[in-house]
Amino acid sequence: MSTWEDRFSPRMAHVRASEIRELLKLLDQPDILSFAGGIPDPALFPLERMQSLYAQVLADAGQQALQYSVSEGLPSLRRWVAERMTRAGAPCDEGNIVITAGSQQALDLLGKLFLGRGDGVLVERPTYMGALGAFNAYEPTYADLGGEVPAGARLAYVVPDFANPTGRTMTRRERDRLLDLAETHDVVVVEDGAYRELRFSGCDEPMVLALDVARSGSIEDVRTVFCGTFSKTLSPALRLGWICGPRAVIEKIVLLKQGADLHASTINQMVAERIVADGHEAHLDRLRAHYRDHASAMQAALARHMPMGVAWTKPEGGMFVWVRLPEGLDGARLLEAALAEERVAFVPGAPFFAVGPELNSLRLSYSLSSPEDIDEGVRRLARVIEARMAYGGNAAQVAAARA
Amino acid sequence: MSTWEDRFSPRMAHVRASEIRELLKLLDQPDILSFAGGIPDPALFPLERMQSLYAQVLADAGQQALQYSVSEGLPSLRRWVAERMTRAGAPCDEGNIVITAGSQQALDLLGKLFLGRGDGVLVERPTYMGALGAFNAYEPTYADLGGEVPAGARLAYVVPDFANPTGRTMTRRERDRLLDLAETHDVVVVEDGAYRELRFSGCDEPMVLALDVARSGSIEDVRTVFCGTFSKTLSPALRLGWICGPRAVIEKIVLLKQGADLHASTINQMVAERIVADGHEAHLDRLRAHYRDHASAMQAALARHMPMGVAWTKPEGGMFVWVRLPEGLDGARLLEAALAEERVAFVPGAPFFAVGPELNSLRLSYSLSSPEDIDEGVRRLARVIEARMAYGGNAAQVAAARA
Repeated sequence: MSTWEDRFSPRMAHVRASEIRELLKLLDQPDILSFAGGIPDPALFPLERMQSLYAQVLADAGQQALQYSVSEGLPSLRRWVAERMTRAGAPCDEGNIVITAGSQQALDLLGKLFLGRGDGVLVERPTYMGALGAFNAYEPTYADLGGEVPAGARLAYVVPDFANPTGRTMTRRERDRLLDLAETHDVVVVEDGAYRELRFSGCDEPMVLALDVARSGSIEDVRTVFCGTFSKTLSPALRLGWICGPRAVIEKIVLLKQGADLHASTINQMVAERIVADGHEAHLDRLRAHYRDHASAMQAALARHMPMGVAWTKPEGGMFVWVRLPEGLDGARLLEAALAEERVAFVPGAPFFAVGPELNSLRLSYSLSSPEDIDEGVRRLARVIEARMAYGGNAAQVAAARA
Repeated sequence: MSTWEDRFSPRMAHVRASEIRELLKLLDQPDILSFAGGIPDPALFPLERMQSLYAQVLADAGQQALQYSVSEGLPSLRRWVAERMTRAGAPCDEGNIVITAGSQQALDLLGKLFLGRGDGVLVERPTYMGALGAFNAYEPTYADLGGEVPAGARLAYVVPDFANPTGRTMTRRERDRLLDLAETHDVVVVEDGAYRELRFSGCDEPMVLALDVARSGSIEDVRTVFCGTFSKTLSPALRLGWICGPRAVIEKIVLLKQGADLHASTINQMVAERIVADGHEAHLDRLRAHYRDHASAMQAALARHMPMGVAWTKPEGGMFVWVRLPEGLDGARLLEAALAEERVAFVPGAPFFAVGPELNSLRLSYSLSSPEDIDEGVRRLARVIEARMAYGGNAAQVAAARA
């Protein structure tokens, strides 16, 4: 008789538990100052409007809000997304949009559509580990987007705006070169725009999709597909996102969506559609102001507390700062010490690398902590780093000097 | 430069548009009497309770109802499902349950876990075409569960209770033999219990999972996984279902769920949990009485109107009757005629066969039509069938006799 391991598909060798997921469990311990979870501040969810809109939708749409609906998503919500994508520089209509269960499902369905065993995916170093989690089930190989393009490359995956985990934004020049490279090697570009709406300083860079439309002449002729989400701007609990791309791609994604889970929640789509119809820009402005304050607090705290030899990014939007530690320090081992000694949490950097992990890195999220907690948490973290930097020579001295 | 077809994964050759999906669009035409859509009667959705529960959940859980939640599903909802599975003969706890986006996603994740290119799946003839839609993306081959078991068979898929499309229920003896066969050939059994709660006559047969637990001694030692859903009993719009099985399977499914869409909608899970906590049995009894009336109306109409040589099933639950036409008639061509001549719709049988399609068959759903419409629709359908049976000889005579 076989064991379960024998029965699982070989693809399961590529599907592993995420370290972020394990770390999120730490958030339940109230005495830990956590910069680990990359999730929106729940204080920003439009709770009262949600309350009245669920009631309104059930009153107006009645039983239809509770019935099956079409796999591509509600036409009116798709039209709203298409208008938004059009305004952002990618003229399209609802035939270019499919509603997904968050942008996580967008990545899974795109993996299913484009990837088979051994196909090459070009990724940034580091990149969003949830994308790796989605793609891994299709058994691709990964290569550095900044390195030589291997034979068999099919897809380039990027988070151009305020990336998870680095907070970095691709410059206009980098976006153009990405499209040059994609053309040269005939790869599909997957643009993950999860944080794009959360810019709090600087100027918008054009979407890669918009640049591709400008080159190609029409959304039907691009090689870029864009993944968007309502998780960071409205509520992740709705599980709503979208893919925007050429009809030839969208039609296949709709078939895959149908096989995967039939359609996104009807009632949640109806609520989302109503909530974005009114006051959405003002709501986004509130989010941006909030994250701007938190990001500033973290920049100030890092500048104030971190020892020489520690470097970090300065995001213009989103939720993340990427910290590079001096050579020889290991983010994963630092986390153990940080939890044990200082009750402060973050995500070590290594798991975000599909190739060539840099152990001396970590990701800090400033979305959930108050400016005061950000300062205190960074102070504690700096203390752990300092102690580690001093190891092997002057650790005792440092401790003595502090006492 | 490549075309999109060149860029898609080879698996897409197996992913095709569903005929049911195309047919559902016909429901929008009000003058058609449709037995096509296999969806619940929306009059049975607990609309008023939903209204008050969405409000309550947002008032009580607040922002947490709108936040990310764990991939395996809310612990309290998983406990409710585990208790229900335990009462139904499969003792288990929440560690044996993962919440999915309807049972459609359960099938997709199980396909992802167990199936690779060329792996064999044993299916009934006919079977649920949505399961084929989920599995096809993993490129299996299909074989008749009633025939010889091919080498490389990994999985047997069954809908033991009031199956879609046949309405048939597997006898106790058939269930035992399925488990014997699964043991002999070391295949995993996927039990799709989508309609199990909708029995309106006769006695419950034990779940295949329960029989497997009785043989094996514990849920941890079975080879059967059970897929359940809230779509037929509460509302499909919530997109909530579950898988029940050994922890070794559930843990892998949770990883795949995380990569596929992170988790099921938090707020919808909270609403489902509250709605089933109170008065659920009484609600199920109302559903059963309703479907019993509709099923009786359809049996009566079939007996009253169908010509000799047409046979049909007599379901004890669920939503479907399977009709076998005389040899030589083709369900798909009959549908064209039925729509054009009599404005009545159904689903032709052939697409439900993964192997060896029987063209002279069709599926009727009685869930959405009133007893009066059922009688009128079956009368019209019988007229189309009768006219086709008469073709080639006495069509004119039949018409004359009727006039």
